[in-house]
Amino acid sequence: MKTREIADFLSAELVGEGTIEIERVAALSSASAGAIAFIEKADAAAGTNASCLIVPLDFADDVSLPYLRTKDPKLAFALVAAILHPPKDRPAQIHDSAVVSESAILGNEVFIGAFTCVGDNATVGDATHLRAGAKIGDNVKIGSNCVLHPNVFVEDGCTIGDNVILHSGVVIGADGFGYVRDRERHIKFPQIGTVVIEDNVEIGANSCVDRGALGETRIGEGTKIDNLVQIAHNVQIGKRVVIAAQTGISGSTVLEDDCVIGGQVGIGDHARVQSDAIIGSQAGVLPGKIVRPGIWWGTPVQPLDEYKRQNAMVKGLSRLRDEVKELRTKLVELQDHKSEE
Amino acid sequence: MKTREIADFLSAELVGEGTIEIERVAALSSASAGAIAFIEKADAAAGTNASCLIVPLDFADDVSLPYLRTKDPKLAFALVAAILHPPKDRPAQIHDSAVVSESAILGNEVFIGAFTCVGDNATVGDATHLRAGAKIGDNVKIGSNCVLHPNVFVEDGCTIGDNVILHSGVVIGADGFGYVRDRERHIKFPQIGTVVIEDNVEIGANSCVDRGALGETRIGEGTKIDNLVQIAHNVQIGKRVVIAAQTGISGSTVLEDDCVIGGQVGIGDHARVQSDAIIGSQAGVLPGKIVRPGIWWGTPVQPLDEYKRQNAMVKGLSRLRDEVKELRTKLVELQDHKSEE
Amino acid sequence: MKTREIADFLSAELVGEGTIEIERVAALSSASAGAIAFIEKADAAAGTNASCLIVPLDFADDVSLPYLRTKDPKLAFALVAAILHPPKDRPAQIHDSAVVSESAILGNEVFIGAFTCVGDNATVGDATHLRAGAKIGDNVKIGSNCVLHPNVFVEDGCTIGDNVILHSGVVIGADGFGYVRDRERHIKFPQIGTVVIEDNVEIGANSCVDRGALGETRIGEGTKIDNLVQIAHNVQIGKRVVIAAQTGISGSTVLEDDCVIGGQVGIGDHARVQSDAIIGSQAGVLPGKIVRPGIWWGTPVQPLDEYKRQNAMVKGLSRLRDEVKELRTKLVELQDHKSEE
Repeated sequence: MKTREIADFLSAELVGEGTIEIERVAALSSASAGAIAFIEKADAAAGTNASCLIVPLDFADDVSLPYLRTKDPKLAFALVAAILHPPKDRPAQIHDSAVVSESAILGNEVFIGAFTCVGDNATVGDATHLRAGAKIGDNVKIGSNCVLHPNVFVEDGCTIGDNVILHSGVVIGADGFGYVRDRERHIKFPQIGTVVIEDNVEIGANSCVDRGALGETRIGEGTKIDNLVQIAHNVQIGKRVVIAAQTGISGSTVLEDDCVIGGQVGIGDHARVQSDAIIGSQAGVLPGKIVRPGIWWGTPVQPLDEYKRQNAMVKGLSRLRDEVKELRTKLVELQDHKSEE
Repeated sequence: MKTREIADFLSAELVGEGTIEIERVAALSSASAGAIAFIEKADAAAGTNASCLIVPLDFADDVSLPYLRTKDPKLAFALVAAILHPPKDRPAQIHDSAVVSESAILGNEVFIGAFTCVGDNATVGDATHLRAGAKIGDNVKIGSNCVLHPNVFVEDGCTIGDNVILHSGVVIGADGFGYVRDRERHIKFPQIGTVVIEDNVEIGANSCVDRGALGETRIGEGTKIDNLVQIAHNVQIGKRVVIAAQTGISGSTVLEDDCVIGGQVGIGDHARVQSDAIIGSQAGVLPGKIVRPGIWWGTPVQPLDEYKRQNAMVKGLSRLRDEVKELRTKLVELQDHKSEE
Repeated sequence: MKTREIADFLSAELVGEGTIEIERVAALSSASAGAIAFIEKADAAAGTNASCLIVPLDFADDVSLPYLRTKDPKLAFALVAAILHPPKDRPAQIHDSAVVSESAILGNEVFIGAFTCVGDNATVGDATHLRAGAKIGDNVKIGSNCVLHPNVFVEDGCTIGDNVILHSGVVIGADGFGYVRDRERHIKFPQIGTVVIEDNVEIGANSCVDRGALGETRIGEGTKIDNLVQIAHNVQIGKRVVIAAQTGISGSTVLEDDCVIGGQVGIGDHARVQSDAIIGSQAGVLPGKIVRPGIWWGTPVQPLDEYKRQNAMVKGLSRLRDEVKELRTKLVELQDHKSEE
């Protein structure tokens, strides 16, 4: 891709040579000839060996290499990267070792890798990849252009949209965790619901999304989930939600569109996180709690400002205690003085 | 199953028609004809389309559908669900692709799925299912009526009882985490013990139970463990314990019978949680700590009441600080007054 | 191994019979004939059935069995255990079911188990074991004497050194978690870097090490990582670092040599933990924070002493509040007194 073509693709202003061939993206510091890099601030791009830069609109450095002015360089960089580094192209195949039910329906140009299983009446959409060891159960529906990485498992009856990426070891649709105590034993509450994962969702390695107990667990369109995340039964996650690693969402909780949840957050059951709420890492949300838009932190969660104020207050405790001691001393002096009178 | 049969099965009082055919359980709000639902409080069951309800003893609504009065509707519902929705029936098979040692002993009616491995001298009890990709090592003993979901791994020498469910990605018997520092390197402390999982245990997806260093790690009868839980070497878990997702139990810790541990709890090594203790989510138990019966929360754990009182106190800190400031002002006034005298 | 041979191997002083045959290691309390056990303190070894003991230099008990005096009995025990209980010897094989690319290069004496995959141009070093279901992608380099336990996955282009142990379910080189918001969607930031795992690293079951976004994620020589740990893209971990279970390290964070990180710790992105820092379980490190050598705990982390002092202060809050109340009462008395004058 030539620098001029990239400029056109990004609708960015090109300063410098338009015919340089760009083959890949790279970080500014480690870029070499043939690479395009980006900078987010208009500061010095000194010493890079990149062949082209994506820069902010107010970039004014005197550099010898061509650059592209754009409003959001990081976004532009990601868009260019998606073209220069497309997802791996796996030639269509159904591996000899794959165990595909006769009643399964496979789309065109699917990649069905070694040691995969496709259950009865399952559907796999066009150009979807089931990589080695991925297994999908009976009556599973998977859309087109998905990638199920090695050893992913999707249990019976779950539905996956288009352009979904499930990283290695993801488990979709295992039983939720629910029991009823009957004297000396725990009786399993039925876990006979399902999971629906909408289009453009990405779920990180070894994360788990349990099936609904009676209804469904749903992950909304464009939501991105990191590694080792736990999504319990009947959770409803909206669109474009972002959830960082090792977070756990308890049963029946609702995350509305565009929430951002940090890592290692725990959210109790039947809670609701409203649109645009941001919850900091390791925070804890109590069961049933409604978390309004804004930034939240701590366990139990508080608005970030309150949390910080409270933290500062706790840190100031030893001073407060000293003050109280001092007041006591003065008061005693006053009293003594008084009694001397 | 007819309504009358369900009433008899539950020993519940049937009010209304006894001949309605019930095919499945459902949530009250989404139930349709042929479904049985339950309500836990004696409040309005208005507008459900279920064909039958399980209700508490004091239910007094005027509904047109048949209902069953019982002391614990949720339990009754779970018991009915277990009959209407039995675990998936997989016809007995040993898949062509399975790699089963000649010295392994397989019970009757076992399901040995695709891409499974059964090691030397391993035993698989009657009617146990090893689903696709499940692997059990040498000298593993698995009881009857177990289900090992896809990609479960049970390492050499571990023992699993009857009616055990291991969800997808569970790892039983990997090495525990123990090293001895030798100047510039960590020497592995031997991890040559084993794991014993008693009857009726269920372990959630991608959870890990490490083998004992020298002795055994044990999970007691009827204990239920959620997804992504970490059980370290030599942990001893009693009977009917419940552990929610993402909790970690460190080495040699003991959880006595009937404990309930929330999600994302961390329990240090050599601790002991006594029978009937309940530990809230995200709590932290220090190494060696004895947690007595009762409800506990926070890091380090405190009795719930103390934790709440302390939390309230922290929240009241700004008021306390204001009070101290006010006292100071008044004291200064008094002093000034005094010196004017 | 005879007691005399063990003494020679450890350069330890043998007291007692040198010809006793020792077959295995065991815990002091459960040892039986043929076992060697160890004690760390010079206290009574009463009642053990071991055939030999490893004891500290100041051991002075009058026991009838032979013992070995050494400076660090636990280390000596681990060293002996490594000889008496060597890693499982799997005869070299390439299982019929393995899918090995023609361009892959396999070393001598490799064990390539059932249902494994080895990608194009991948290299597997001498005596390395890929156990059943382990999968390595294209251009992966794995050194010699490694064990990849069942269902491990190593993504394209990652590099693993010698003597590395990856426990069951480990995922190396999945995409990191990075997006750029573009109005109504999240665009994937390129995740095209790699992972380098140096020699003698051990990683616990179901842990994840993401590939670098543009550069590399690196785990240094001799580092040991427990189960269910999350290592994000571009993290740099030094040598001999120890990380306990369920800890998460966010993107681009650096852990210098010889750090020790407890379980369930969360470390924000772009942080740096300096050599010899020790971070207690469940602690939280803010993004960008530099953690100096010493012991740290809490969220956000503080030096352990400060954390304890602060905790004590919080616990003392109710007394402080009572004192303030008492001061107020006295002050009011004084004021009243004054106005009476």
